[in-house]
Amino acid sequence: MSPENKKGLKRLPLEGVMVLEFCQYLSGPSAGLRLADLGARVIKVENPGKGDLCRILPIKNQWVGEDSLLFHTINRNKESYTANLKSETEQAGVKQLIQKADVLMHNFRPGVMEKLGLGYQQVKAINPAIVFAEISGYGEAGPWAKKPGQDLLLQAMSGLMYTSGDQSHGPAPFGLAIGDMLCGAQAVQGILAGLVHRKRTGKGSRITLSLLESLLDMQFEVLTTYFASGKRPLRSAVNNAHPLLGAPYGVYPTKDSHLAIAMIPIWPLREALDCAGLEEFDQSKVFSHRDEIKQVLADYLKTETTDHWLTKLRESGLWAMDVKDWKALKKTEGYQHARLEQELKLADGQRIRTTRCPIQIDGEVLFSERPAPGLGEHTASIKEEFK
Amino acid sequence: MSPENKKGLKRLPLEGVMVLEFCQYLSGPSAGLRLADLGARVIKVENPGKGDLCRILPIKNQWVGEDSLLFHTINRNKESYTANLKSETEQAGVKQLIQKADVLMHNFRPGVMEKLGLGYQQVKAINPAIVFAEISGYGEAGPWAKKPGQDLLLQAMSGLMYTSGDQSHGPAPFGLAIGDMLCGAQAVQGILAGLVHRKRTGKGSRITLSLLESLLDMQFEVLTTYFASGKRPLRSAVNNAHPLLGAPYGVYPTKDSHLAIAMIPIWPLREALDCAGLEEFDQSKVFSHRDEIKQVLADYLKTETTDHWLTKLRESGLWAMDVKDWKALKKTEGYQHARLEQELKLADGQRIRTTRCPIQIDGEVLFSERPAPGLGEHTASIKEEFK
Repeated sequence: MSPENKKGLKRLPLEGVMVLEFCQYLSGPSAGLRLADLGARVIKVENPGKGDLCRILPIKNQWVGEDSLLFHTINRNKESYTANLKSETEQAGVKQLIQKADVLMHNFRPGVMEKLGLGYQQVKAINPAIVFAEISGYGEAGPWAKKPGQDLLLQAMSGLMYTSGDQSHGPAPFGLAIGDMLCGAQAVQGILAGLVHRKRTGKGSRITLSLLESLLDMQFEVLTTYFASGKRPLRSAVNNAHPLLGAPYGVYPTKDSHLAIAMIPIWPLREALDCAGLEEFDQSKVFSHRDEIKQVLADYLKTETTDHWLTKLRESGLWAMDVKDWKALKKTEGYQHARLEQELKLADGQRIRTTRCPIQIDGEVLFSERPAPGLGEHTASIKEEFK
Repeated sequence: MSPENKKGLKRLPLEGVMVLEFCQYLSGPSAGLRLADLGARVIKVENPGKGDLCRILPIKNQWVGEDSLLFHTINRNKESYTANLKSETEQAGVKQLIQKADVLMHNFRPGVMEKLGLGYQQVKAINPAIVFAEISGYGEAGPWAKKPGQDLLLQAMSGLMYTSGDQSHGPAPFGLAIGDMLCGAQAVQGILAGLVHRKRTGKGSRITLSLLESLLDMQFEVLTTYFASGKRPLRSAVNNAHPLLGAPYGVYPTKDSHLAIAMIPIWPLREALDCAGLEEFDQSKVFSHRDEIKQVLADYLKTETTDHWLTKLRESGLWAMDVKDWKALKKTEGYQHARLEQELKLADGQRIRTTRCPIQIDGEVLFSERPAPGLGEHTASIKEEFK
């Protein structure tokens, strides 16, 4: 952490921006986290009963105090304000906050905020310059609007599961909640574009995103190819790593571990590896004979160690990499140099180690040791501040 | 497309923002595309010889005119200005553009722009208020700074390949260039935060990102769990879909296709499916007996069709989904309703069908039919405009 960050002297880009986050689980809260790390003041508005349901969603059964470790990880650097939105009195307090806010974001199902009297038209009447962002599963209207917006289900129905794994496998999910994360990232884009627009025009706006649109956007390459050819891009039968790329692109078992090989032209690859089996193929065959080329290579690479092949490929300036797990990664100098880890300090003195904001500004790594708030931890102080 | 978009009457949030894109391939250009779709004027500054090397990178051997289909897809809605950056005269023209620009972004390897005389300090001397964004593979310095910043290689060394696929599988890549896309999305966040900051303070800033930081950020859940437990989260042996989530989370083969099942508590699941084999497990076992529970379920779900199970689960309000490929997806009403597709009109009258910007503003879907520029297509007109 730079001394400037620590002392709060360094001005972060979003300082002075106030965000109300009516969000739960991952997509919306991940957007709030990024805005907070970039300097915004992010207030989670939570139900006084359970709050963000992510507080009780365990991952690997890990808990910190009363909340799940996941909740801590994704809601650090925020404040928590509880209000029963169905109570007129308590909603009046929320409306006072809305008057002062620059951004309001929510990821309730379509219609929920409107029923509470906090839809865009209602909020706009209170604060016409607000940037109002909504994340849904499938859009605010249409035949799918009421479906549950859950990451794995969206991966399943968006075609994404036909990009990973080999052709003979069934559909293969990405092993992380990628729809939630990408949609959250795009929500930040929309919100910040809305703030730029407001600085210029004085006008607020409404930003709408859905997991469906985000997951289809992520597949723009495969979809455009499918639109053009009418044929579904097929995953490789051998070591698939991208359904649109030719041989040798993929991850190969070696004598002792695994080797990732990027887009390397066939002849330099044959030369570097001294692989006679590749002689019958040239560059014109990397799409038409993708699986045959990859099979020859797969059989050959099994005969020696990853280091053996890496040395040969790197001597020839060709792009390859050994495959690491987190334990191996953490031991590397490069990982240490990147300073990706940071510690959060909880009120009870406990510490949680997590990752930091990936964006650096003016050469500075952005750390924030501020933990996730307890449910309603800041209700009283915020009421006092805005009364 | 709304009539307002078509006629250019609708004001997009980033109108008036001028971006110089010194980028190639996917990460930087995907950021430029988003800024363009949100209303910025994005000028690709390209080498007069070959330009962005993505122009000659085929995917599935598909070409449109002289450029690859991929290039068209990701560089639509931009202008192209060619200049030999090693020529003093031609660089002088570029510096005139820099004086007028709001944003400059590049994804060259560290040191390249500095050698050309276009590093941040040099550009800042010309335009102190510019937002200068740099994307690298592994950061601008450190032991890995000179490594090739390629998506698959970064997936390999960042630990990501231990999140997808089953435990008995080797490391499994995500089947799309997810590092490039996420890093591009975060570059847009940093750039827009820089613009918000500039509107408030009048000051420019330098935004730095790397594929490494983006891919580690994407793994914040698994990494935080690993930091806390010291144990590597293991993928399920059966139908893995997320290494941190308990049974039944995963994708299951059925009699006729596949079924995705999200976080459903064990007892309601047993009731809904009438699955006696689940009787010996309760909710306390979903992590400790993850694979056993999933195996019981996998064996049982094979006996009937996806529709059969979906009906039962949905009747009980439980979260499940059939798995679709792009062909099946395109036929659905929900997909049609989302209007994700748009057509680009090329100068020669040819049309390309691709996807649109996933962010909606004020309830409007943002379309843009403007195609990718030919190499240097706008050099003369831009020179005239800024002379």
